[in-house]
Amino acid sequence: MAAFPASGEIEAYLHKHIPLSAAMGVRVLAADSTGVRLSAPLEPNINHRATVFGGSASAVAILTAWAWLHFTLRAAGQPSRLVIQQNTVDYLAPIAGKFEAHCAAPEAATLEKFLHTLSRHGRARIEVGAVLTCNGKKVAAFAGGYVAIKLDRIE
Amino acid sequence: MAAFPASGEIEAYLHKHIPLSAAMGVRVLAADSTGVRLSAPLEPNINHRATVFGGSASAVAILTAWAWLHFTLRAAGQPSRLVIQQNTVDYLAPIAGKFEAHCAAPEAATLEKFLHTLSRHGRARIEVGAVLTCNGKKVAAFAGGYVAIKLDRIE
Repeated sequence: MAAFPASGEIEAYLHKHIPLSAAMGVRVLAADSTGVRLSAPLEPNINHRATVFGGSASAVAILTAWAWLHFTLRAAGQPSRLVIQQNTVDYLAPIAGKFEAHCAAPEAATLEKFLHTLSRHGRARIEVGAVLTCNGKKVAAFAGGYVAIKLDRIE
Repeated sequence: MAAFPASGEIEAYLHKHIPLSAAMGVRVLAADSTGVRLSAPLEPNINHRATVFGGSASAVAILTAWAWLHFTLRAAGQPSRLVIQQNTVDYLAPIAGKFEAHCAAPEAATLEKFLHTLSRHGRARIEVGAVLTCNGKKVAAFAGGYVAIKLDRIE
């Protein structure tokens, strides 16, 4: 599997193509086949209680999972259109400052099956999770269902 | 129950206290005891596929449900701290342009029970839904669980 682009390159891609990521101050801390870690500061994401707006927390989690999956598919030589079908967010504690979102790659067998189905049928579905932390404390849990459609099937 | 503030007043409140709402270009189309309707344009919420980023769709839905609940509690004379506990979003179709989010008040008996529990115990939980539309077509469905804690219990 080919390598992921450098973190700075992924950050520039996100800021250019998903401008809300720039408005939220999203930074790419790490991104490789094992997972993606993003951060966002409090200020642009603050709410009336001086904690992070739930919509920002949710959006950064969605972005983290999407970024991992998007660049994983490219690295696997199967660039695809990705569609989020459904997501759930559990908000565990108020987020009082800068926060991080970490999407860890699912088990190798799950990813392998997903890539095999995509390669064979041009379409596959996968569940991807992400965890949000603030000062090392888990503050939210995200799970999203994404469908990948191979680009040569639609373009 | 007292009236809701005017839509323009609510919009100014959102833009001031939740700056991401301004970054997303959120407008308040209507807001009263029966529900809240917000809109957001494509441009600041666009993704790399030229449709609305799922994180924006999700954030506008969260904001719509929150706004209805926040101003309903004030109108009922029970201003409270609101905490989102959990939410689910089903993305039904790509959103190719300006979209709207509509949170309709739950059934009268549900709201009554919620306000009664809050008044009696200082804390109550409610499920609030919202529907996203684009050009009149339903494109996403949101459900969120919110806990209200009476302000005189915490401040």
